[in-house]
Amino acid sequence: MTVDEMKYFFEPHSIALVGASRTPGKTGYTVAQNLKKADISGGSYLVNPNADEILGLKSYPDIDSLPEKPELVVITTPSRHVLPIVESCARNGVRAIVIVSSGFAEEGYGDLQDEIVAKAKAAGMRIVGPNTTGIMNTENNVTSTFVSFEDVRRGNVAFVVQTGVFAGAMLETVLTTQHFGISKVFGLGNKCDVDDADALEYLAQDDETEVIAMYIEGLKDGRRFFEMAKEVSKHKSIVVLKSGRSELGARVALSHTASLTGRDEIFDAACRQAGIIRVRGFEELIDVTKLLALAPRAGGKRIAIASVTGAGCVMGSDYCTDEGLEVATLTDESLGGLEAVSPEWHKPAHPIDLWPIMDSTGFHGFKESVGIMMNDPNVDAGVVITGAVRTFPLVDENKLREQLGAALRNDKPLILVMFGDRESIMKIAANVEPHGIPVYPSIERAIRVLGLVCNAHVMRI
Amino acid sequence: MTVDEMKYFFEPHSIALVGASRTPGKTGYTVAQNLKKADISGGSYLVNPNADEILGLKSYPDIDSLPEKPELVVITTPSRHVLPIVESCARNGVRAIVIVSSGFAEEGYGDLQDEIVAKAKAAGMRIVGPNTTGIMNTENNVTSTFVSFEDVRRGNVAFVVQTGVFAGAMLETVLTTQHFGISKVFGLGNKCDVDDADALEYLAQDDETEVIAMYIEGLKDGRRFFEMAKEVSKHKSIVVLKSGRSELGARVALSHTASLTGRDEIFDAACRQAGIIRVRGFEELIDVTKLLALAPRAGGKRIAIASVTGAGCVMGSDYCTDEGLEVATLTDESLGGLEAVSPEWHKPAHPIDLWPIMDSTGFHGFKESVGIMMNDPNVDAGVVITGAVRTFPLVDENKLREQLGAALRNDKPLILVMFGDRESIMKIAANVEPHGIPVYPSIERAIRVLGLVCNAHVMRI
Repeated sequence: MTVDEMKYFFEPHSIALVGASRTPGKTGYTVAQNLKKADISGGSYLVNPNADEILGLKSYPDIDSLPEKPELVVITTPSRHVLPIVESCARNGVRAIVIVSSGFAEEGYGDLQDEIVAKAKAAGMRIVGPNTTGIMNTENNVTSTFVSFEDVRRGNVAFVVQTGVFAGAMLETVLTTQHFGISKVFGLGNKCDVDDADALEYLAQDDETEVIAMYIEGLKDGRRFFEMAKEVSKHKSIVVLKSGRSELGARVALSHTASLTGRDEIFDAACRQAGIIRVRGFEELIDVTKLLALAPRAGGKRIAIASVTGAGCVMGSDYCTDEGLEVATLTDESLGGLEAVSPEWHKPAHPIDLWPIMDSTGFHGFKESVGIMMNDPNVDAGVVITGAVRTFPLVDENKLREQLGAALRNDKPLILVMFGDRESIMKIAANVEPHGIPVYPSIERAIRVLGLVCNAHVMRI
Repeated sequence: MTVDEMKYFFEPHSIALVGASRTPGKTGYTVAQNLKKADISGGSYLVNPNADEILGLKSYPDIDSLPEKPELVVITTPSRHVLPIVESCARNGVRAIVIVSSGFAEEGYGDLQDEIVAKAKAAGMRIVGPNTTGIMNTENNVTSTFVSFEDVRRGNVAFVVQTGVFAGAMLETVLTTQHFGISKVFGLGNKCDVDDADALEYLAQDDETEVIAMYIEGLKDGRRFFEMAKEVSKHKSIVVLKSGRSELGARVALSHTASLTGRDEIFDAACRQAGIIRVRGFEELIDVTKLLALAPRAGGKRIAIASVTGAGCVMGSDYCTDEGLEVATLTDESLGGLEAVSPEWHKPAHPIDLWPIMDSTGFHGFKESVGIMMNDPNVDAGVVITGAVRTFPLVDENKLREQLGAALRNDKPLILVMFGDRESIMKIAANVEPHGIPVYPSIERAIRVLGLVCNAHVMRI
């Protein structure tokens, strides 16, 4: 039943935006722009009693005057207008409402919010929000957010986040710096009705979604959420960034989304039991999501490292120790293979120092070494550390994908850490990430991600 | 005396490169290219017995045949040729040698390395290396590294690092992603002679250098290093990334630069006593260096936060708690000022949620809020969190510098955290960083940096 109700948000037959604006820069303007691009079977309607036409579309004075009853209504008006709009939605058989407007429970107007929820419940309508930018479906361009669809990549990652602006800016970060794609976005805001558990229930059956990345300030119903997560995490990955961890952060969350954050140790333990990967920050959320979205799962936590700088071998060993990962012991056969591409004065070991090897046998030695490492039966995941220096060929930019690709296996993640020239690294990432090799800008972040993911998965095995 | 000796590395009258190569892609080729650009009073000479001319310069068969005795000699030949070259340096009154070549103590050939050091000592020559890329001086373009000077920014940061490739790739990262500048680079490699304490002693009196960023695997003489650091940190900032922290990492360091890493708890305590800021990774090294290079020092650890997303207020509070920083309590006067730019339904608090303010008074409200925050007497440092979204004006890209600049003070750091569109953020960073406002890509990194720096400085007060 929840799933059927959620479908009205993501696959509505028809949509209306109440609070559409003619003023560029206003939320109601950008959302109207996006609405025009929605690929739905019914109509898209704009409502603003003070306008006849907005962005070339007819503007209606209210919901009652629309030629068709909208299944989904998005509201961006000031908060004092929202209750009567919800009442008119109820009269007209609307099924789902996104309330973008702020100024409800988070500002002390909880009574108004409760009244709205009661009206919606009585009419069988579900609400996302208020105080959010709302939803997005990359299959049909349906969205209530201000993120443009021009360059949204479809893919296997859904975001469920409790804050509108953060969702918008985070999506923009993902779209302009990452190469994984997006299936759905839930921006839940104050969670007056639809909450994280509803989102999980819907995404569990959504074939487009394999990874669920969440930002949570507070849960409405912790028990239901963790029970749901325990089921979902058996076949999809769930990554959670939870804030309001500190006493002060908890107080601030109350005034941001009216969230009760709960005790952090309890949340943490519940995540572990439910198979949720918990991260500490925004960058870590993206880092972990990237690995899960692009690469196969590791069967264990024996990590192999090959680095063009010996410093990478040293630091990689430190970070593996920090994260409770094992640095793999390569077979004698593998070490023999490495010896064959090394100069006579260098005795290869693991972690693999690629510098003497490449000094002697160049990119052939690089490719051979990575292949040997990834095919070693004692290795569950591999990390290759190298750099892009404009004046010195540390990597063969045009052939790197082929060199690494030869070592790719569908049962082990292969991660690339790149230092150096920003432009080259962007090109390399654009080249290798869509082929299943995630790229990270530092060793500590790469190994941290492996730690979070391998430990979570090993625990579940 | 050390200082005078070090000057031969950074301000030599004349230089020779032994191991110059005609083959693009070889170290001896790129170093020769760079050597041509050195702005020195004497000559730059290339030595290769198998060539007459390299890159348009005459090539000499050996040191003995040079028309002028070089003060600095850079050696890039295979390791087996290095000893006789050092002997010829001794014969010809050379003062300083950079041995780029690998294959010495780190590969088990410690005897050869010791013999070279003995020869150099007897002749009064100092050695940087072996197993490194060596030195760089941005004042006169003197370098033994393969980093091109085309776009090196001069500035107040010196790097002292124990690994050649890492130095090269790290510099390339700094040059293509950061806006602080570089004064000197010491790549110390195996530290057979010149070590971290020598580097500190030289940089202490170098007027160009205000911040010293170091990567260390092992110290040769810990006592001398920490005594020197304690003096230097009174007037310059020292940031240290030390690896080989774990048992395995320590073993790997031994085979990378023949370093004895020592016990990590002891190193850590010594850093605190010496006023060194210790970081955990490469990104943190750059992050902390950036703040120190660009912004004034904070007089305390009371942090103010203004965020365009309420999530930033919540997470900022969490991270301040994690780092032992205080979230500032704004004066009633400040809160009154914020109220004046807020809509009637929003009661401003600290951390400052900029969304309702900007929804009501736009960029004027943004500028006012940041000004109020930075001028509050209860605030030691400020963090502004915002995003760049292509379809929605969260920031006024062209006026952001002016808006933030109005709040800049020379007694408090002001940090900008930016999410969103990569291109816009790069433009904004290029615009504001040279004016003393460092930009970070995540809240956790910004607050972490403030934690490391403020705690270190407060401890020293």
